[in-house]
Amino acid sequence: MREVAVIGVGATKFGELWEKSFRSLGLEAGMKAMEDANLSGSEVDGLFIGNMSAGRFINQQHIDALIADYSGMATNHIPATRVEAGGASGGVAFRQGVMAVASGMHDVVLVGGAEKMTDLDDTSINHIMDSTADAEWEAGMGLTLASLHAMIARRLIHEGVATREEIASVAVNSHFHGELNPGAQFRKAVPIETVLRSGPVADPLGVFDCAPISDGAAAVVLCPLSEAKRYTDRYVKVSAVAQASDTLALFQRRDITRFGATAAAAERAYAAAGISASDISVAEVHDDYTVSGILALQDLGICARGEAGKAFLSGATRVGSGKVAVNTSGGLKARGYPIGAAGVAQIAEITEQLRGTADKRQVKDARYGLAQSVGGTGSAVTVSILEAV
Amino acid sequence: MREVAVIGVGATKFGELWEKSFRSLGLEAGMKAMEDANLSGSEVDGLFIGNMSAGRFINQQHIDALIADYSGMATNHIPATRVEAGGASGGVAFRQGVMAVASGMHDVVLVGGAEKMTDLDDTSINHIMDSTADAEWEAGMGLTLASLHAMIARRLIHEGVATREEIASVAVNSHFHGELNPGAQFRKAVPIETVLRSGPVADPLGVFDCAPISDGAAAVVLCPLSEAKRYTDRYVKVSAVAQASDTLALFQRRDITRFGATAAAAERAYAAAGISASDISVAEVHDDYTVSGILALQDLGICARGEAGKAFLSGATRVGSGKVAVNTSGGLKARGYPIGAAGVAQIAEITEQLRGTADKRQVKDARYGLAQSVGGTGSAVTVSILEAV
Repeated sequence: MREVAVIGVGATKFGELWEKSFRSLGLEAGMKAMEDANLSGSEVDGLFIGNMSAGRFINQQHIDALIADYSGMATNHIPATRVEAGGASGGVAFRQGVMAVASGMHDVVLVGGAEKMTDLDDTSINHIMDSTADAEWEAGMGLTLASLHAMIARRLIHEGVATREEIASVAVNSHFHGELNPGAQFRKAVPIETVLRSGPVADPLGVFDCAPISDGAAAVVLCPLSEAKRYTDRYVKVSAVAQASDTLALFQRRDITRFGATAAAAERAYAAAGISASDISVAEVHDDYTVSGILALQDLGICARGEAGKAFLSGATRVGSGKVAVNTSGGLKARGYPIGAAGVAQIAEITEQLRGTADKRQVKDARYGLAQSVGGTGSAVTVSILEAV
Repeated sequence: MREVAVIGVGATKFGELWEKSFRSLGLEAGMKAMEDANLSGSEVDGLFIGNMSAGRFINQQHIDALIADYSGMATNHIPATRVEAGGASGGVAFRQGVMAVASGMHDVVLVGGAEKMTDLDDTSINHIMDSTADAEWEAGMGLTLASLHAMIARRLIHEGVATREEIASVAVNSHFHGELNPGAQFRKAVPIETVLRSGPVADPLGVFDCAPISDGAAAVVLCPLSEAKRYTDRYVKVSAVAQASDTLALFQRRDITRFGATAAAAERAYAAAGISASDISVAEVHDDYTVSGILALQDLGICARGEAGKAFLSGATRVGSGKVAVNTSGGLKARGYPIGAAGVAQIAEITEQLRGTADKRQVKDARYGLAQSVGGTGSAVTVSILEAV
C-alpha cells in the first residue's frame, strides 16, 4: 500500500445558508480545497462524497454524479462515489478516498462531504435524522436520536462516570472554540449555566446539548505521500484510517456507556500508526450530543473512564490549556453539523492544526492529530490519525 | 495492487416479496454467498453494500450498520460501508470491495446489494426513482426516468440507429433468459408483440420496455486471488473494475444516443484487463429500459452503432446462439430490478457463467465476462470484467 497525504483542505461556512443550494455548497468547498492544494480539477482522478440523505433533504439521489458534474469533472468521466453511514458519512468517505490512493487505483482524490438540511421544517429534519437509528425497533417505536443519547447520559450519571455539569461542559468547550473559528455556525462562547438552563429536549439533555441543524460542505485533497511535494509544502501524512461497526440499535449493547466501535477503530488506528493515545495532541470528536464527547475521549483512550468529564469541565480540553486540545474547530456543536460534511470538516481542521494554519485556534507543536466520526448511536465509527511532516 | 478473486455468490429470488424485510433479504443473500465460498461470517473483515434509497423506501438510513448487525459481523466491529450511485449502486459497491482487497486494507470482503421497494405505493416508488435524475432541472420539471429514456429511444429511431422493434427485442431477450432462471421475477418468455402492445408508459416505451419494481438482494465474496484456493476451487478472477461519471442531467450531453460514461468505463476496463470487446463471451448489461440495452452493447464496443438492435432482434444475444450472450440472468427486465442489488446480481451471474454453474443458462467455454451497471441516464457507469481461471 502507498502512504497517503492530505495536500489541501476547504470548507464553506456552516450555518443556515438559505441562499445556497446543495450543489453550490459542494462546489465551493471543493474549489477551496483544490486551490489550497494548488491544483486544478483536471488533475483530480477520483471523487468520494459523504452525504447522509440528500435523497430526503432535497429529493436528490445520485449526488456522486451531481458533484462530478457541477465541478466540471464529469467532462473527464472521473469515478465519483457517494458513501453514507449516518453521522459517520464524512469519515467513511475519507477512508474510501485514502483506500483509493493507497491501492494505486487513484492518484489525486477529492473527498467531499455535504449536507443541505434547512430546506425542510424541523419535524421532517428530525424524522430523517432519526432514521439512522433502527427503523423497526427504535425510530418506529418513537425513539429519537436525542432520547437515545439522553438514556446514555442518564446511565453515565447513574454509574458516576460523569456529572450533569461535566456533560454540559462539552458544549462549553465547543462554543469556546467556535468563537475562534470564522467558519463556525455559532461564534459565541457560552457559560455552563446557558447549557444547563437551555430548553429541555430529552431529559437530561437540553437544546445546548444538541448539535444544530446546518447546511455546509467540506473537502480535502489526497495524493500519494511521495508526490505531495509536487503540489505544496503544506501537507500532512495520513498515518491511519480505521473504521468499525456495532449493532444498529442501542438496546442490543451490553453496556451503553461505551461505544465499542470507537474503541475498536481507535485500537486499529493506533496500531496502524504505531502510536498510542498519549501521542495525540489535538482531536476532533463527534459531539453530536454533549454526552458523545464524554464517551469519545474515554473510548479513544485519551482519558480514563470517569476522567473525560473532568477534563472538559476543568477547561483542560481548550487550546493552549492541557495535553490534548479537543474540538478546536468548534466541534459539531458550535462549528455546526451538516451531517455528511462533519467528518470531512474534522480532517480539514486536524490538517490545519498539524500544518500550522489554524490561526487563533492553533495548537502548538502538535505532531499527531485524531478525528473521530460517529453514525447513529456508535453504530459506525471512523478514527483517523494524521501526522505532521 | 493485489489481484482479486470472486470466491462465492448468492442471491435471493427477486420479486414482490411481501413476506420478507430488507434486513432478512440482505441476510439471506449474504449467507448464501458465504456458504458458496465455504466460509463463515467470522472470516469476513469488510462489508460493502450497494443500496439506492432505503432511507426513502423503508425509512432506514445507515444500513451499513444494519447489515453488519444482522449478519452478526458487528460483533467483530468490522468496517461496513454503504455506497449509492442511483442504479449503479451495486456496481460501485463491487468496485469498492475490489479496491479494499486490492489495497491490502481488507482480506475477505462481502459485497452486498439490496433494495426493498414494494412497501410503498407506485407513485411514491417512481418519485424516489426519479430523484436519481436532476432534481432541479429534470425531476423538478416533471421529467421521469421513463420519459428521459423515451427521448433517447425517439432519437435513436430518428437517427436510424435502431427501430422500435429492435428496441422492443431487448425485453424479449431478457424474458427468454428469465424463463431459464429460477431466481427471476418473471419466468416467462414473451413474444415481441407483447412488448409492442404493452400499455404506454412514455411513448414509444410501454410497460414491457421498463424493468419492474422489485425486492431482492445479492452478494459476492472477494479475497486475494492468491488465497482463493484456500476456500474453493470454483472461483473467478476480477480482471478489471472501472467506473465513470457523466453529467447528471441528460440535456447537458452533446449526444443523447451514446452514454459517454459507459464508453469511458469500458475503455478503462479493457485496458486494465488487457483485452478488447471482442474477447467478451457473456455480458450482463443494465436494461432498466429496453433502449438502455441498445446503448449498452454499442457503447461497450460489443456491437457497432446500428448493429445492437439487429443482434437483439435476430436472437444472436441468446445463450447458445451468437458470439456474445447478453443478460443470461434475465437482466433487470425479467430477473427483476431491486435497484441496489442489480449490479451485484450481475457479478453473481457472470461468476456463475465463468465457473460453469449457470445450469440451463450456461454459456459454453466463456473465458471473459462483463457486467455494466448504470445510474440515472448514464450519469454513473461501472464496467467490470471477470475471467475464468
